[in-house]
Amino acid sequence: MNRAYIKDLGAHIGEEVLIKGWVDSRRDHGKLIFLDVRDGGGKVQVVILPGDPSATDEAGRAGHQSNAHELRDEWTIELAALVKERPAKMVNENELNGHIELEAKALTVITKAEELPFDNKAELNLETHLDYLPLTLRRERTRDIFKIQACILQAYRNSLISQNFTEFVSPAIVGGDAEGGSAVFALDYFADHKAYLATSPQFYKQIMVGAFERVFTVAKVFRAEKSATSRHISEITQMDFEMGFIQNELEPIAVLEQIMKNVCKSVIDNHGDILERMGIATPKTPNKFPIFTLLEVQEILEKNFNVKCIGEDDMAPEHERMICEWALKEFNSDFVFITKFPTKARAFYTYEDPKEAPLSRGFDLLFRGLEINSGAQRINDYDQLIDKIKSKGLRPELFAYYLQAFKYGMPPHGGSSTGLERFTGRMLGLANIKESTAFPRDMNRIDSLLSRADE
Amino acid sequence: MNRAYIKDLGAHIGEEVLIKGWVDSRRDHGKLIFLDVRDGGGKVQVVILPGDPSATDEAGRAGHQSNAHELRDEWTIELAALVKERPAKMVNENELNGHIELEAKALTVITKAEELPFDNKAELNLETHLDYLPLTLRRERTRDIFKIQACILQAYRNSLISQNFTEFVSPAIVGGDAEGGSAVFALDYFADHKAYLATSPQFYKQIMVGAFERVFTVAKVFRAEKSATSRHISEITQMDFEMGFIQNELEPIAVLEQIMKNVCKSVIDNHGDILERMGIATPKTPNKFPIFTLLEVQEILEKNFNVKCIGEDDMAPEHERMICEWALKEFNSDFVFITKFPTKARAFYTYEDPKEAPLSRGFDLLFRGLEINSGAQRINDYDQLIDKIKSKGLRPELFAYYLQAFKYGMPPHGGSSTGLERFTGRMLGLANIKESTAFPRDMNRIDSLLSRADE
Repeated sequence: MNRAYIKDLGAHIGEEVLIKGWVDSRRDHGKLIFLDVRDGGGKVQVVILPGDPSATDEAGRAGHQSNAHELRDEWTIELAALVKERPAKMVNENELNGHIELEAKALTVITKAEELPFDNKAELNLETHLDYLPLTLRRERTRDIFKIQACILQAYRNSLISQNFTEFVSPAIVGGDAEGGSAVFALDYFADHKAYLATSPQFYKQIMVGAFERVFTVAKVFRAEKSATSRHISEITQMDFEMGFIQNELEPIAVLEQIMKNVCKSVIDNHGDILERMGIATPKTPNKFPIFTLLEVQEILEKNFNVKCIGEDDMAPEHERMICEWALKEFNSDFVFITKFPTKARAFYTYEDPKEAPLSRGFDLLFRGLEINSGAQRINDYDQLIDKIKSKGLRPELFAYYLQAFKYGMPPHGGSSTGLERFTGRMLGLANIKESTAFPRDMNRIDSLLSRADE
Repeated sequence: MNRAYIKDLGAHIGEEVLIKGWVDSRRDHGKLIFLDVRDGGGKVQVVILPGDPSATDEAGRAGHQSNAHELRDEWTIELAALVKERPAKMVNENELNGHIELEAKALTVITKAEELPFDNKAELNLETHLDYLPLTLRRERTRDIFKIQACILQAYRNSLISQNFTEFVSPAIVGGDAEGGSAVFALDYFADHKAYLATSPQFYKQIMVGAFERVFTVAKVFRAEKSATSRHISEITQMDFEMGFIQNELEPIAVLEQIMKNVCKSVIDNHGDILERMGIATPKTPNKFPIFTLLEVQEILEKNFNVKCIGEDDMAPEHERMICEWALKEFNSDFVFITKFPTKARAFYTYEDPKEAPLSRGFDLLFRGLEINSGAQRINDYDQLIDKIKSKGLRPELFAYYLQAFKYGMPPHGGSSTGLERFTGRMLGLANIKESTAFPRDMNRIDSLLSRADE
């Protein structure tokens, strides 16, 4: 018999099927044994009826419970079973396979598992969760998080491809720490050379604008910040795009708005069940996302929240939360764009129109109370860029490779960068960024706690 | 007037359009100036008629050639122009926009470029090409290569998603060099800890089988091999998948065959023009790719190429070329799977069925004369894996994190790994892997030559 996938069982009522999967849980009720069995696509309830262990059925198979009593969580099994409709009062309409259950016919154990270090359904603190990730990644909540993340990734890329962007692979190893100051990891390269881990694909995507005009990359970036908070990890996934021949920052903003609409639609269409299971509201994406200048935001906050912040260069975290709360109420939007930050508060390559000085063409995108994205129109004039590098006390010769792109004809361009883990976390209301990182690295941990490695 | 994209101009014959792009080349023929102008999506020929530089047209715009004489390659421009059909004898049917040309109406220079360091159409040696990548990435051949690469990436992922695989993000930083011996980059992590750059997502994708059964990742891997050949780069993009509940290696082979069919179809459907321009035959993907055991291959080589190789543990590069040549002739296939390599020649986690010893369940995929992919069924039994680690002289305690996945119930599983740069290179017949790497890193170069950084 060919294997059936658990998500498809609803189409096989009355038939005998063969499934394979993990014992997700086992409950003994009197003479009955109930299993939840899961495979890559879903979960189903199995009932094992009592039977004479030595008896065999018409196919010569052993009594159904002969080896069922030893089953434990996470064992992998192969199970021949009859697909039956559940009695009406047992139907759970909100669940995959909530209307069926399997009646076991023959059970084969594929692999056993050691006794679990904790009850598989118990809530765990984050450190324990991370210590046992190879096991805890199998929990429904964790699988739900990374199902959503996979969906975000693919929808983000698909949106850009449909908007005529070309993907490229940005490097992780870079030759210098040209910008200085930022927390950069150094590595031993060949022949006593030092190399560094990239903190951003920024320079490479700008270079690529010269080749393809519209480009994107999903790149790893690395931050050696000595901070052990719920927001810090040392290895981050960034989704970056960059586009040429723009008039101003409103064009990358429009591309990003389209991405966010497409991503949210894809999450809602494909994983509404997960949002419901996690108690998360569907993301609100109005036809036109609200766009405010920083000053407008500050005025709104003064007026509506009695907060004094006019004239500040950036937004405090609680102000991000307030403006998002307000935008949700006023515009039914989970997203808010903020523009016109002071140039001095942005990266050196951010464009400033002389008529708009001292304000820049940089922007942020807030989502449910948090900045998940930062973008801008960039400086595209070679001489202006050199002047800006010098004015920041940096050495243009360290940027010589990057600067070639500007020496040989660079159009006005801009783009943006979204943190995948942060976006996933906001989408699902997670308290710690490590929950939305499959294998998080931080100051104290690479898989296992580093302190433990010293013991 | 809204900007028109160059690829769409064929639909605007007789209309005036506004385009933006780079001057790809300029040719002066008597009183006429011809430009090729390219944007992100294509190229078009522009003719600039002579005119009185001081004259203005009905819209008050300056004479058409007033600023055209100063134009040079790679300047970016905005151009209002009339779309005209070419005279019949000038039509080039094989080219985008080969049936039209633009008659310039008004030209605006957006950014100028310095004089190029070489003729933009001249052939360059690889070192010069790499020294000037921010410029040479704009060349048609280079853009063609990375258009194909972007297509491969997306088609590879889409095929896996359609085969029910879930994507995950595999880490680049790892805590230990557990396997030892292989050339690994070390980096300074926090608090005097050393960390390392991943040489494979292998352990992580196996762990993820426990969560999703079928998973894939596109991951960066790093190799500190002291080799400066046409095949070596230190940062590589790997496309990896892994799947649970398999019977044997034929299941990952079937998944991989489907991927390759989908990728080749996507390349042919979307970029047939590039294959033609580069003089590359369309890849041959028969309905069933040939699968041979290593021994069968060796027998074929002895019989058809008079090569003595029976009993060797692996295939020499020239033998890979021979069997591919033979398979193309006999099966009209650019792909050949090879199975049943000796266990001792494969990674420690490769599964060996006792009945098949000393042969393993590992396999390779050859494409046009080169191995582009390696895969296997893996050991899934915890005790067997520990024994195998010990037998290789490695310390199981260094694998404790990974081993959790096996301790808590791991089904038979297997998968494979394809090198993106190598696959792209074979697809396009490129001599050096650096040609199919957007920003290649090797022993001597990270963007710029490292020796130059010492000067």
